[in-house]
Amino acid sequence: MSDETDIFRRQGFAGQIGVGDAPALVVIDFQVGFTDPAQFGGGNIDHAIAGTVGLLALARARSWPVVHTRVVYADDGSDCGGFTRKVPALRGLTETSPWSQIVETVAPHPGELVLRKRNASAFFGTELAGWLIGRRIDTLFVAGCTTSGCVRATVVDSCSHNLRTIVVTDCVGDRAIGPHEASLFDMKQKYADLMSLAEIEAGST
Amino acid sequence: MSDETDIFRRQGFAGQIGVGDAPALVVIDFQVGFTDPAQFGGGNIDHAIAGTVGLLALARARSWPVVHTRVVYADDGSDCGGFTRKVPALRGLTETSPWSQIVETVAPHPGELVLRKRNASAFFGTELAGWLIGRRIDTLFVAGCTTSGCVRATVVDSCSHNLRTIVVTDCVGDRAIGPHEASLFDMKQKYADLMSLAEIEAGST
Amino acid sequence: MSDETDIFRRQGFAGQIGVGDAPALVVIDFQVGFTDPAQFGGGNIDHAIAGTVGLLALARARSWPVVHTRVVYADDGSDCGGFTRKVPALRGLTETSPWSQIVETVAPHPGELVLRKRNASAFFGTELAGWLIGRRIDTLFVAGCTTSGCVRATVVDSCSHNLRTIVVTDCVGDRAIGPHEASLFDMKQKYADLMSLAEIEAGST
Amino acid sequence: MSDETDIFRRQGFAGQIGVGDAPALVVIDFQVGFTDPAQFGGGNIDHAIAGTVGLLALARARSWPVVHTRVVYADDGSDCGGFTRKVPALRGLTETSPWSQIVETVAPHPGELVLRKRNASAFFGTELAGWLIGRRIDTLFVAGCTTSGCVRATVVDSCSHNLRTIVVTDCVGDRAIGPHEASLFDMKQKYADLMSLAEIEAGST
Repeated sequence: MSDETDIFRRQGFAGQIGVGDAPALVVIDFQVGFTDPAQFGGGNIDHAIAGTVGLLALARARSWPVVHTRVVYADDGSDCGGFTRKVPALRGLTETSPWSQIVETVAPHPGELVLRKRNASAFFGTELAGWLIGRRIDTLFVAGCTTSGCVRATVVDSCSHNLRTIVVTDCVGDRAIGPHEASLFDMKQKYADLMSLAEIEAGST
Repeated sequence: MSDETDIFRRQGFAGQIGVGDAPALVVIDFQVGFTDPAQFGGGNIDHAIAGTVGLLALARARSWPVVHTRVVYADDGSDCGGFTRKVPALRGLTETSPWSQIVETVAPHPGELVLRKRNASAFFGTELAGWLIGRRIDTLFVAGCTTSGCVRATVVDSCSHNLRTIVVTDCVGDRAIGPHEASLFDMKQKYADLMSLAEIEAGST
Repeated sequence: MSDETDIFRRQGFAGQIGVGDAPALVVIDFQVGFTDPAQFGGGNIDHAIAGTVGLLALARARSWPVVHTRVVYADDGSDCGGFTRKVPALRGLTETSPWSQIVETVAPHPGELVLRKRNASAFFGTELAGWLIGRRIDTLFVAGCTTSGCVRATVVDSCSHNLRTIVVTDCVGDRAIGPHEASLFDMKQKYADLMSLAEIEAGST
Repeated sequence: MSDETDIFRRQGFAGQIGVGDAPALVVIDFQVGFTDPAQFGGGNIDHAIAGTVGLLALARARSWPVVHTRVVYADDGSDCGGFTRKVPALRGLTETSPWSQIVETVAPHPGELVLRKRNASAFFGTELAGWLIGRRIDTLFVAGCTTSGCVRATVVDSCSHNLRTIVVTDCVGDRAIGPHEASLFDMKQKYADLMSLAEIEAGST
């Protein structure tokens, strides 16, 4: 996308944000159903989950608040809506379904927030914004899946909330690589910085 | 993207939503600055503006409520934040700047809502959701620019609000065609139907 | 408050809203802990619960969508915040606590939405607004407890969302009668109509 | 209300919050129309405006970020809704109406945020939450009018956003004293601390 990068550069996009003083980590929808290509998985999602094991260790070592999200719908479908109309199979992600559980290698620790959500963004219809305010967070690292879906929707809302937003490139994945790459490009131009896990480890915050 | 379309089809994405009983039209950020490639313009944005002239005529003939959005920041920058940190040139879009005015051919008529916004989504930090509730809207047609930016962010939020969301393909544009196409693909898979102006004209709502 | 009513009347408050075409009912926090004066109960809350048995029967007979809310916090307190700082005893309302369960006489039926919330308003950090949009609701009847707390906060947000908002006077209660009466007065002046169950029964919607 | 205070004390309400590390001040709707008893004024509102002159001086001396709100509707009424249905006279508060201007003695300084709003809460349909996040605010002092209306609605939302919320007792006013007192009582029990200007001056933050 070198031509396109030129357009955005000439117009002054892709300003560098940088890491602030008080980071938190949100891990989006690493649920069992997203590890199975017959369900919602495929592409580089498994790779992103593997990377997130290290990211979670880093976050916990540095005492960053950690949030995990799960897509979960009521057993009777009473909370279904626009998203399940577009992707009906999501309705199977009920509270006790094996597919809706968080993958064991990246499972929440006690005291970490677990948010149930019914839409793409982790901010939509949840108390995430208030939870971050309560901890005076200024920087949100984002991992999870899918890059072009719930990760990106969360990143856009995070930027709108004026959080320094960092997409951890080796910890986000998508079922298809084209949309993954296209969303990384867009997020870098307009909403977030991109950093690898190694770059974060090299930082001091 | 035929391989990728296959992945999404096998997993049950891209359900058809359809037009409901009570549509509204939102036109995103067709401001003068987005018509100039030296500012934020380029690509197929001018084409989308030309298409929207007909779409607005249709909407008004059918008495759909119409909303226009403008990105506007305070003269003293007091309301700048995450978005302007990433795209500093946006700060020039002040209330009276020529660049922030809506393009004349698609200018608002009296009684149409004009929303000022400071972030990508027309729903974020605005009263748009309540305004649609007050009119019992169930379907939101979306035109404007850019496809991969404020249009897409608005579409994601519209889907989360459980509105039937329709992207009007000849009335959305972007400064670069790659991101335009990639976002049309993603929106079709996950959040919205895509319809051309001709298809909407052929409908009866 | 006749003097005060005069002030508001002279200034043009307390406009009549009326019932619209598509009502829903929300029942706020009728949880076991709010029936016990040693917990969060007392005053006229039990009376309001008794009244709500009839209101729910009416709503179901007329096929209105019904929403129930529960205040629920995580077992590990990870989602506590401003409200529990002010009212620490609320932290005991965990998912499986007997105190957090909905009172049996007004328990949800299958298909009715049950929202968990951590703050006063049923709209805050929940998907309630989107759920109402998805059903094209224009009128929200509000029952529950407490009148001066979660009922009033929900009513203010409902008005802000441009819903016709009706407080059902014999179906809302508070642990203390002074705050109950004061909030009924304020809501009538600024945000909602007040109707008794008998008045609603006499209507035709 | 000593009996009622007893009920709330026995149930563990009115926990002390305290001032945090990073305060901001929001001044609600001190517009010319709220100084005239023939419009929306009366009661102790003028007294609260006089008190706020000193509060603003303090906030500026301590470099707290300051936000002012104005209720403003479009000239053509395109953004009216639930609130103006209940209080039709509010529609006169258009952008250039003398009644909608902020009172000169408490007028904004350059760089202070001025939010236009159409509903009671300063958080509803505005970018206030994100603006506070962008400054890592943890404490919100609230002044303005009316105590039982827009002040209280803002205080409830501030608490829900997990901000330490402090109502400045000599800087909030209402057109009628009964609702003023009743809302101070409720806010103290459930959402906020009450502090006088003298108490804030004696503090060190």
